[in-house]
Amino acid sequence: MSKLRTKKTLLSGLPVLLLSGVLGMQVAPASASDHSHHNKEYAKFNKAGELVRPTDYREWIFVGSPLTPKDMNDGKPAFPEFHNVYIDPASWAHYKKTGEFRSGTIIVKELVSVGTKKSASGNGYFQGDFLGIAATVKDKKRFADRPNNWAYFGFGDKASAAAEPDEACSACHKANAAQDMVFTQHYPVLRAAKSK
Amino acid sequence: MSKLRTKKTLLSGLPVLLLSGVLGMQVAPASASDHSHHNKEYAKFNKAGELVRPTDYREWIFVGSPLTPKDMNDGKPAFPEFHNVYIDPASWAHYKKTGEFRSGTIIVKELVSVGTKKSASGNGYFQGDFLGIAATVKDKKRFADRPNNWAYFGFGDKASAAAEPDEACSACHKANAAQDMVFTQHYPVLRAAKSK
Repeated sequence: MSKLRTKKTLLSGLPVLLLSGVLGMQVAPASASDHSHHNKEYAKFNKAGELVRPTDYREWIFVGSPLTPKDMNDGKPAFPEFHNVYIDPASWAHYKKTGEFRSGTIIVKELVSVGTKKSASGNGYFQGDFLGIAATVKDKKRFADRPNNWAYFGFGDKASAAAEPDEACSACHKANAAQDMVFTQHYPVLRAAKSK
Repeated sequence: MSKLRTKKTLLSGLPVLLLSGVLGMQVAPASASDHSHHNKEYAKFNKAGELVRPTDYREWIFVGSPLTPKDMNDGKPAFPEFHNVYIDPASWAHYKKTGEFRSGTIIVKELVSVGTKKSASGNGYFQGDFLGIAATVKDKKRFADRPNNWAYFGFGDKASAAAEPDEACSACHKANAAQDMVFTQHYPVLRAAKSK
């Protein structure tokens, strides 16, 4: 039930995206080295309290790429195929130091189709086209009443998004994710940073 | 033949890595925004002319994650399973502007095992442990005699590596890669940057 609801809410707008092809990409500068940015808030909210669609996340820190292909999920995975997951640079710097997700952390999941299953390197799954993004933000003040202060957002093709109804995403994350509602068990980059 | 040779040369040392577990990770700052770094050379060579093993590539720009799982390749893929691929920040900035790989480009492929094939999000492939890295460098002066000036390096657990014999990698890249011997057909981040 909750998986179905998640799918419906997070992916509304995806057909439009599929029709319009690859998403336009605005890359704003990101930096893991600029220490003046260590307290920077990468999650921006508009006056309506909606999360503004992040545009520069492909220059953030990649943490892992779970894959749930259609052909292994009866044609209907909960989320489209590859999920390229990124954490903002300031929260990455904090995580490297403390092993914890700070208040202000934003994690973006970019969804990507399977382009082909054959290449010169062998049989497998190879990334095709961008399909859309989802995001989660931890904020102790803004989301004081949410489990572990995380809220979840699905964008479809929208420029901003309200937080999903709490039960849509957080129950699954709370039950199954390894650390603080984040699926670090699938993100080797975070595990390696924490183990240092 | 060339695939077998590639496997043998690139992956020598992998068993040692597998035994020693997750690689130690030294993360040095990287930046896509610091304009003073736009001409920075991220590929470092020692006095013997060997490429020094990059340590900060997880803070470079992720471009895609091809997957060639064991169970789809008779247990013996040409490369281990997930390949997380990164380009250095200065060459990324150049690519965004020109759509070309500059002399000085270094691309790192980090190899990651499949950790599990089941998760809360469905059936699929989920990243497990780091296994090692390979890299390619384009340098018009240093590799003037190599096809398109690219040379290829496999590290196993070594701190530096000599360029592979030319035929080991470049023939496959030249024959199958979409742009300038780089498999951009599998890297949606590069394709999107180029299409702007």
